Amino acid sequence: MVKRDKQIGIVETQYYTFAYPSSELELESGEKFGPITLAYETYGMLNRERSNAILILHALTGDAHAAGFHPGEKDPGWWDNMIGPGKAFDTEQYFVICSNFLGGCKGSTGPASINPVTGRPYGLQFPVITIKDMVTTQRHLIDYLGIQKLLAVIGGSMGGMQALQWVVSYPDRVGSVIPVATTANHSPQQIAFNEVGRQAIMADPNWNEGDYYGKDLPAKGLSVARMVGHITYMSDVSMSEKFGRKFKNIKQPFKFSPEFEVEGYLQYRGDNFIKRFDPNSYLYITKAIDYFDLSNGTGLREIFKRITAPFLIIAFKSDWLYPAYQSQEIARACKLVGIDAIYCELNSNYGHDAFLLEVNEQAHLIKYFLKRVAGSLEVIDEHNV
Amino acid sequence: MVKRDKQIGIVETQYYTFAYPSSELELESGEKFGPITLAYETYGMLNRERSNAILILHALTGDAHAAGFHPGEKDPGWWDNMIGPGKAFDTEQYFVICSNFLGGCKGSTGPASINPVTGRPYGLQFPVITIKDMVTTQRHLIDYLGIQKLLAVIGGSMGGMQALQWVVSYPDRVGSVIPVATTANHSPQQIAFNEVGRQAIMADPNWNEGDYYGKDLPAKGLSVARMVGHITYMSDVSMSEKFGRKFKNIKQPFKFSPEFEVEGYLQYRGDNFIKRFDPNSYLYITKAIDYFDLSNGTGLREIFKRITAPFLIIAFKSDWLYPAYQSQEIARACKLVGIDAIYCELNSNYGHDAFLLEVNEQAHLIKYFLKRVAGSLEVIDEHNV
Repeated sequence: MVKRDKQIGIVETQYYTFAYPSSELELESGEKFGPITLAYETYGMLNRERSNAILILHALTGDAHAAGFHPGEKDPGWWDNMIGPGKAFDTEQYFVICSNFLGGCKGSTGPASINPVTGRPYGLQFPVITIKDMVTTQRHLIDYLGIQKLLAVIGGSMGGMQALQWVVSYPDRVGSVIPVATTANHSPQQIAFNEVGRQAIMADPNWNEGDYYGKDLPAKGLSVARMVGHITYMSDVSMSEKFGRKFKNIKQPFKFSPEFEVEGYLQYRGDNFIKRFDPNSYLYITKAIDYFDLSNGTGLREIFKRITAPFLIIAFKSDWLYPAYQSQEIARACKLVGIDAIYCELNSNYGHDAFLLEVNEQAHLIKYFLKRVAGSLEVIDEHNV
Repeated sequence: MVKRDKQIGIVETQYYTFAYPSSELELESGEKFGPITLAYETYGMLNRERSNAILILHALTGDAHAAGFHPGEKDPGWWDNMIGPGKAFDTEQYFVICSNFLGGCKGSTGPASINPVTGRPYGLQFPVITIKDMVTTQRHLIDYLGIQKLLAVIGGSMGGMQALQWVVSYPDRVGSVIPVATTANHSPQQIAFNEVGRQAIMADPNWNEGDYYGKDLPAKGLSVARMVGHITYMSDVSMSEKFGRKFKNIKQPFKFSPEFEVEGYLQYRGDNFIKRFDPNSYLYITKAIDYFDLSNGTGLREIFKRITAPFLIIAFKSDWLYPAYQSQEIARACKLVGIDAIYCELNSNYGHDAFLLEVNEQAHLIKYFLKRVAGSLEVIDEHNV
């Protein structure tokens, strides 16, 4: 047993490549595709019974680097406050996997990857993909890691969609599900916001039908897309608290320079996004999100019938991008078919971002839920929560 | 007295030009500017006492053509269901004026107007303007029409900001105020949505620092701006009711063509906007809206002290762009200084668009309110409401 104050320390992203041209993967569209590489990280140790594996699935612009430090970097992974010795995902007890997804630009195969047929980046030659396709590829990764059944699958936002798709696609391989701030199908308003982002990217002449690799990037278009996104991630209240109507500067060099702090913030976040995200990935991934309809029109109740895994469903009151009613629909469907489901709606002013910012309550909820599903009776030290 | 079934019929937009270079208007910024033309329409007759004039102020993309028909056109003005004989704004009783605003592109002086100094459109040479500047120019129009005191000033959305500014700037010249679906100051979230629209326009290379007149227009940028706007005008519920997750077509010629009905709708509305709106006007007007802070930091209560005009304040439950709490703040400030204020929050799923779509209840509220402020005791024929 490791000491409680131990940290995860230095980690490295790993890569698993499969579906070589000889055994291409059939996508939901019917198209065959390969090879596929998935980037992933793991923390903690898989136990002898291979029964302590937890799969974490990240949101739109996240990556596989969920915890610990990459060599030479100052900032830890995006969910480091939740993953580690004594934390919600206690790496002394659990083997935690965070997997990136197909179509992304964080080490997994996506539109910026080299198409082996042409020797050039796929661009729009990349196939249309779905959340289900992402989950299918992640299942290959879990096979490769030698895990028959995951103790839990968890994700926030688009990660929650993957978690839901996991238990629907592979009910026998998922021990429990924790969908956070997410939905079982994308609403027209949610589609509309994504479509604005896509149109902003495609309106940028540098986008050039997706063929911009090695040339000028569609940075302005991606920046506008990111700005729209940021508004939807925050709330009216959190924006008022953070920015108010404060002015950034008094003398502006140009009439339409950012003057209000909120303008400067959005432009900064928008302009920086091009350094870490591929515009074509933004198109493909938002499209996959928009296609997401877990029940495919048949009703959640029907497709939940085969599921026995317990659910912990978490929503946030001020989240207007994935409003609580969408989580309630998931909870209702669970109850209607007898799935053991806990629904928690947490108070927070942070809007959708709450799933990344409201750590304490989530940590408690998840820690106790995992204890229960792991069947462990060990007494929890509250001070380390 | 005209018969009840009479319609407004054919109307023409009129123009009033003032502030000739010799007597330029001083803007809130301190800059002097002129000449200024305002487009406006009038319906009904001004009475002998000049006491029955109602000023209607329109929203961001509206115009002075509020009622009746322009020669040869099939569609009436934008608020024709509210203005006319026997309607809420009964043109048998009231002299109704609808004024366009400075900075627009609907017949009033704006960035697309010819700068008399250069003989070319102003573009970014146009001065920065505010809601207060718009109201100052409208006061010149009301002077010109020979009206000392308006019976009522009314507007929805940005029109409501002008109505509020009218009573604050000229408390002795406003008999009553009807702010609908509006706010006394723009919140960071509201600023953020406008800023996304501006950035989308300015990201379009055709925008060319505002110098695009007679050349290729920044149509794609304006389209994205309009798409963002449309999302904020509707509600999650109204979008679900109107579009659901319905597909527009099955076979798409291009991977990122609009597939969902909501995508097609937004693109259609976005693409058509360039035919009727000047991108530079969109920049200047949204900036004026963002600057809008009626109390300028001193508190509404303080600036409402000089006002005696009664208020009818209308908000809509599903309006998340100008949420009801912002109207409640106006109502609270009225009550605190003894202003006779009625606050009505109407049920509607239409979101912000409700101020244009929920006619019946608004018509009743406004009709009775105007009767009261006009001091008329005439019995209202319910069938004509």
